[in-house]
Amino acid sequence: MRALVTGGAGFIGSHLCDRLIAQGEHVWCVDNLHLGQRRNIAHLEKSNAFHFLEMDVLDRARLGELFAEAKLDAIFHLAANSDIAAGSADPELDFRLNELTTTAVLETMRRHGVTRLFFAGTSAIFGEAHGALHEDFGPLAPISLYGASKLAAEAYLSAYAHLYGLRTVVLRFPNVVGERATHGVIYDFLRKLDQNPRELEVLGDGTQTKPYLYVGDLIDAILVAWEQSSGPLAVYHAAGVGETSVQEIAEIVLAATGHAGAAIRCTGGDRGWPGDVPKFRYDISRLQALGWRPRRHSTDAVRLAVERIKANGF
Amino acid sequence: MRALVTGGAGFIGSHLCDRLIAQGEHVWCVDNLHLGQRRNIAHLEKSNAFHFLEMDVLDRARLGELFAEAKLDAIFHLAANSDIAAGSADPELDFRLNELTTTAVLETMRRHGVTRLFFAGTSAIFGEAHGALHEDFGPLAPISLYGASKLAAEAYLSAYAHLYGLRTVVLRFPNVVGERATHGVIYDFLRKLDQNPRELEVLGDGTQTKPYLYVGDLIDAILVAWEQSSGPLAVYHAAGVGETSVQEIAEIVLAATGHAGAAIRCTGGDRGWPGDVPKFRYDISRLQALGWRPRRHSTDAVRLAVERIKANGF
Repeated sequence: MRALVTGGAGFIGSHLCDRLIAQGEHVWCVDNLHLGQRRNIAHLEKSNAFHFLEMDVLDRARLGELFAEAKLDAIFHLAANSDIAAGSADPELDFRLNELTTTAVLETMRRHGVTRLFFAGTSAIFGEAHGALHEDFGPLAPISLYGASKLAAEAYLSAYAHLYGLRTVVLRFPNVVGERATHGVIYDFLRKLDQNPRELEVLGDGTQTKPYLYVGDLIDAILVAWEQSSGPLAVYHAAGVGETSVQEIAEIVLAATGHAGAAIRCTGGDRGWPGDVPKFRYDISRLQALGWRPRRHSTDAVRLAVERIKANGF
Repeated sequence: MRALVTGGAGFIGSHLCDRLIAQGEHVWCVDNLHLGQRRNIAHLEKSNAFHFLEMDVLDRARLGELFAEAKLDAIFHLAANSDIAAGSADPELDFRLNELTTTAVLETMRRHGVTRLFFAGTSAIFGEAHGALHEDFGPLAPISLYGASKLAAEAYLSAYAHLYGLRTVVLRFPNVVGERATHGVIYDFLRKLDQNPRELEVLGDGTQTKPYLYVGDLIDAILVAWEQSSGPLAVYHAAGVGETSVQEIAEIVLAATGHAGAAIRCTGGDRGWPGDVPKFRYDISRLQALGWRPRRHSTDAVRLAVERIKANGF
């Protein structure tokens, strides 16, 4: 496989590069270093099979040159703004980084005759839907610009897959945790404790409850979906077992960092920020039918992530 | 009401302007005359309550000036590329005319504090889904760039409605027929018969079957949905009774134009063009619950449209 990983120096992208290189693939890692970090891939740069390019996927001319030179046959499109709260402050941010990067990739694939695409989807496209969300659930009513831009991207993926003969795999991620993350609830707590070890501020009332998946388990899910699925457009949901509340995460972080005595102060309200979906659950039976198994409980994924983040040097 | 109708000189937009003026509203009609035609609204221009501006909704600076000057309180966003086949030839067309016009309207509303919005949706967002399609149906897997761009627009409508306090009504149109249409199956047939009265070419195998709604009945549906709905985002489907095949439409057009003896020649294949959805049906119970009633069978809508188009001078 001659694979392009967009956002490849980011949190999830760099873990995917690790796995692809370990499997013996050739990897072109593209990142504008907006959220991605060079140190996430520094250990890969000695490999002859790994090529890093600092560039923006929105630069269609350079993207086209890369397709022509590298003779790519597989695209893993992970470049995105993954910081939902930041997107609500600037309406253009999610549109450009989530939707326009996707249509740039799609149009470049069409022009260069590349047909195999992986896309990083999200539960945020469902808005505040209740119950265990199956891949076919409707209606889709996102409440954040992050969710809207990812849904818009999925809309074009679907049309391109059917019109132009692509083979596209969408895996809609749950909340993903692990080392190399640059934001998210665990990092937020660690940063706050660095500044004030006596009191931990929790956005919302602490009852927000979501499924967390350890990044290594997500990479397994990506590769199972990639290898096992067929047809123009295959969509999957991945999650571990169960869900975890923000209050529980706060307690895990406090215990792991030796601040068990610190006070937890909730800012109140049912959610952390406008556009936050306070609770969701996935139906993962479709991915399980391909042979993927969740290896951990959501809360164990959080514990493992806190450990690895500490070991990795926060 | 001080209403902006985008695409107001177009087929459906001009009928909506007629009705709003008849109801005593103030109407600002905006159209770039890409598909719209000045003669569709010529009869309205003597009214003091009617204002026409030839401009592009994508010109955000001019759109903002209009919002400021006209003190608008209701937006009916109908500007779009409604020619699905044209959109498959140029991947940028639907993106710009369907999605970017919508995000321009949304962002201008947010900046000017205007909260009431109507949006012209479409069944094309469902792709090749079977059964009677309810508003909550999933998955949404469009097979045309037209469908993708309208789904992308709906995605941002949902996020803006929930984040910024808009009150948005989406009516997903079926196939709409009537006088002033500039394309579509009836016009296509009339044009072909003009050129060759002995033989009528039908794209596909003629079995494509869809619900057709007369434009006057659609305007009723728009206004019922507009007046009766509440909440940040209300979505409805409208259709008449039953569906009509392309073969039946061909026969109606031949009979109405005195070419009953002409041959019908189907080009073959199950659809008219890439991205065409050959069959669909709507569940319209949600709009019926608001008091709207379909007044005609789909095939009677086609007959009425052919009559009115002839009377209007094709």
